[in-house]
This record gives sequence, C-alpha cells and structure tokens, in this order.
Amino acid sequence: MWKQLFICLSVICIYGETKYYQEKQRNEWVHKDDGNEIGTRKSHHKGPSPPDHTKLVAMARYVLHNCDWASIATISTLPAIEGFPFSNVKSVVDGSMANSTGIPYFYMSPLDFTARDLSKNTRATILVSLEQTRYCENQKYDPEDPRCTRLMLSGKMKKIKENTNEYQFAKAALFERHPAMANFPADHDWFIAKMKIAQIAMVDWFGGAKYVPVKDYLAYNYTGTEMLQYHNQLLHKFDNDV
Amino acid sequence: MWKQLFICLSVICIYGETKYYQEKQRNEWVHKDDGNEIGTRKSHHKGPSPPDHTKLVAMARYVLHNCDWASIATISTLPAIEGFPFSNVKSVVDGSMANSTGIPYFYMSPLDFTARDLSKNTRATILVSLEQTRYCENQKYDPEDPRCTRLMLSGKMKKIKENTNEYQFAKAALFERHPAMANFPADHDWFIAKMKIAQIAMVDWFGGAKYVPVKDYLAYNYTGTEMLQYHNQLLHKFDNDV
Repeated sequence: MWKQLFICLSVICIYGETKYYQEKQRNEWVHKDDGNEIGTRKSHHKGPSPPDHTKLVAMARYVLHNCDWASIATISTLPAIEGFPFSNVKSVVDGSMANSTGIPYFYMSPLDFTARDLSKNTRATILVSLEQTRYCENQKYDPEDPRCTRLMLSGKMKKIKENTNEYQFAKAALFERHPAMANFPADHDWFIAKMKIAQIAMVDWFGGAKYVPVKDYLAYNYTGTEMLQYHNQLLHKFDNDV
Repeated sequence: MWKQLFICLSVICIYGETKYYQEKQRNEWVHKDDGNEIGTRKSHHKGPSPPDHTKLVAMARYVLHNCDWASIATISTLPAIEGFPFSNVKSVVDGSMANSTGIPYFYMSPLDFTARDLSKNTRATILVSLEQTRYCENQKYDPEDPRCTRLMLSGKMKKIKENTNEYQFAKAALFERHPAMANFPADHDWFIAKMKIAQIAMVDWFGGAKYVPVKDYLAYNYTGTEMLQYHNQLLHKFDNDV
C-alpha cells in the first residue's frame, strides 16, 4: 500500500514541479522585458521619489538631473515666424551622472533651429518636468497638476570653448548619458553650449510658482545616484542581451 | 521502508508547492502593477506605431493627438526676464479622443505664467514629441534622434467665447482627457484657448525639419482610435480596482 501511495505522490510531485518551473520561466520573461522599466512600478520610474516639495533647491536639482531632455525656448529667426517664441526638443545633461552641477549642457549644431535662433539672441528658457520621468503618470497626476513638478531655467546660452576643462567634462557627460551622440553626423560642426542662469521658476505644489535662488541652486551638493544606477542597469541588460 | 519514503516525499512535495504558490503570487503582483503600463512593452506605449515618416500630415496629426501635454513657449512678462522666451507645461487636447481636429486646446487661468504672457503678446509655439508617449524610449531612440518625432505649431493664441459650440466641444474634450480639470480650483477664472496656426515644423526623419502645410493638416481626417482605447482600458482598470 505504501508503495502505491509513494508512486502516486511521485507523479503528483513531478506535475507540481513542472508547474513551478513554468511559472518561474514566466516571471523571468516578464522581468527580462523590464529592461525598459527599471525600478519599482509604483514609484518614480528611475529610482527614489523626489525630495519633499518644501525643499526647493533639492527639488530643482533633482528634476534637472533626472531628465534626459528639455524643451528649450528661443526667439525664432524663421522667416514666417520671426520674433515668435519658439521651442525645440534638446537632449540635456546637468553634469555627469555621478557629478551633477545643476548647469544644463547641450550638444548643438549650427544647422538646428535652436542654434540658429541663439546666434541672433542668446536668451532662452529651459523647461523640464517630472512627467518626463513617468513619476507623474505613476502617481496618477495630470501633467498640469502642481505636484507634477516642472522647472524653468531662464538665462543666456553660451558656447563653451574647446580645449577647456569644462568642455571636456561636458562632452564626456553628454556622451555618457546620450551615447547616440557619438554617432551624430561628423560634419554638423557640433559645439557645446550651457546656460548662464538668471532666474529659476518652479511649480512643485499648490499655491503657485516659486523662485529658487540661483546661487543656492548652483552651490547645492547633489548626491543622488539614481541616474547612475539606472544607466548601469540598462548597460547590464544590454550586456545580457548581446 | 515505503512508508518512510512516502513521508519524505510528502515533505518535499509540500515545499515544492509552497515555492510554486510564491512564484505565482509574484507573477500576479507584477501583472497587477501593469495597470500603469497598458499595451505591449516593446511597442508604442499607447497603441499602434506612428505613420510612415514620409506621410507628413498623418504624422503631424498623430503626434498631437497622442500627446497629453505640450510645452508652450511665450514671450515672458516676468520682471526679471521680460522679453525672454519662456516655456511652460500645459495639458492639451486636439479635440475629443474620438474626434481629432488638429487644433490644440488648453484650459487656462489668468493666474498662470502662460496666460499672463499671452495677454500682452498672443504669439506662441506649441511643442509635442513622441518621447512623451514612450515610443522613442521603446525604440531606444535618443530624445534628439530625428526619428523621435517632434512637432512645433507656431501661431497666435485665441480665447474661445463661452456659450459657443466650439467652447462646449473643447471643454468636454479637455475634461474627457484630463478628468482632474473638473477639480481644479473653481475661483481661478478658467477659460479655454486655442491656437490659430501659422506654421507647422516637424522633425521626423534624417535630413532636417519639414514644414507641413497648415491647410492640409487641418483638413486631414484623423481616424486613429488608439487614445480612446487606451483611456477605456484605464477606466476599466479603475473600475476593477474600486
């Protein structure tokens, strides 16, 4: 009798183990596909949550550091809309992933709208929003909800001289966050520009916009490593896929 | 002996079933959390892929219809940066989810930056990008990659008169796509604005920006139902969660 029971139980066990391995495989497929979605789902897509909304400087630095692109507003030189405010998408860094400076750096070509406008009038506003990082979507905040923090840096754009330490730093930082730049067309006369910030406006809570003191913003020592971790995970996933 | 083997195997089986149920629970948590990520992971977050890049009008209409927010550039009236180009995040619709018109509509308050600027100078540029829909991320395009389509509508902003058919249509469309608007503070003197489009610039492929004829853009009959499906799925998920 025990022998028959043993044989029956063996069959049940084998079936059970098969189900377990199928479920485990299903989980691995799901998490393998998570390559685009690093980090927990209920929280900020790319790492820890933003700082408390009352910590204006920390919040402002957090938002810029965690955005890969910005919209940059300039005064248009296009014939049909000369003098109009114009806006363009530009990939951005605020320094390297491990060394955030709060200064926005861009890789520009004289061929693009933005550089052409800036060559006549260097005034610009750079806009970044936590909607871009999926934070707002995950929190179910409308993009215009004041808790969906947006930051507007206004000032004058300035070309950085090649063969300076800042140029080397900024170029390395841009290529680190945006590896595609290494393959941008070589004959587009690329240069690096940054903003000399005159005003920082931010909406991060109810009650209207706040102004963040530029000196405090630049002096703040940002130590968050979420972007570095996120990009390392992406690289790690890429290595696994190759 | 068979009795001892049976007892041993029972213990092993119970352990195996426990692992199976843990793995199954883990899978359920993962898929429950998929509520924020409707649609397949490898494809466009919100539905079918964009049109072929050579179909400029179809592409331009697709991009605006599939974006929930835009950056809107204006000429600033803020004291520290008067005359600077400025940019802000605004939730947008181009009509209802089932009835796209290509005209961008916004819900505005005289208290916000944008409305204050527009009250002095109605010129604006509205910028939307497929980066906002996760398409570019899923394709592994850098935000500045020319295949990560961005659309710039430039023109003059105009307030829509209340008690007109257009006002009713636009308000319903805004509240449909942005239900949070129903709870925006009632004392903020909300009004609805649209753009009278003067120029449409778009980058959707290599070789520089293209200009989309405004008449053709407005006349195009956009029939994509992806936004409607996406929002219905979100509502359905909400009903299941309640």
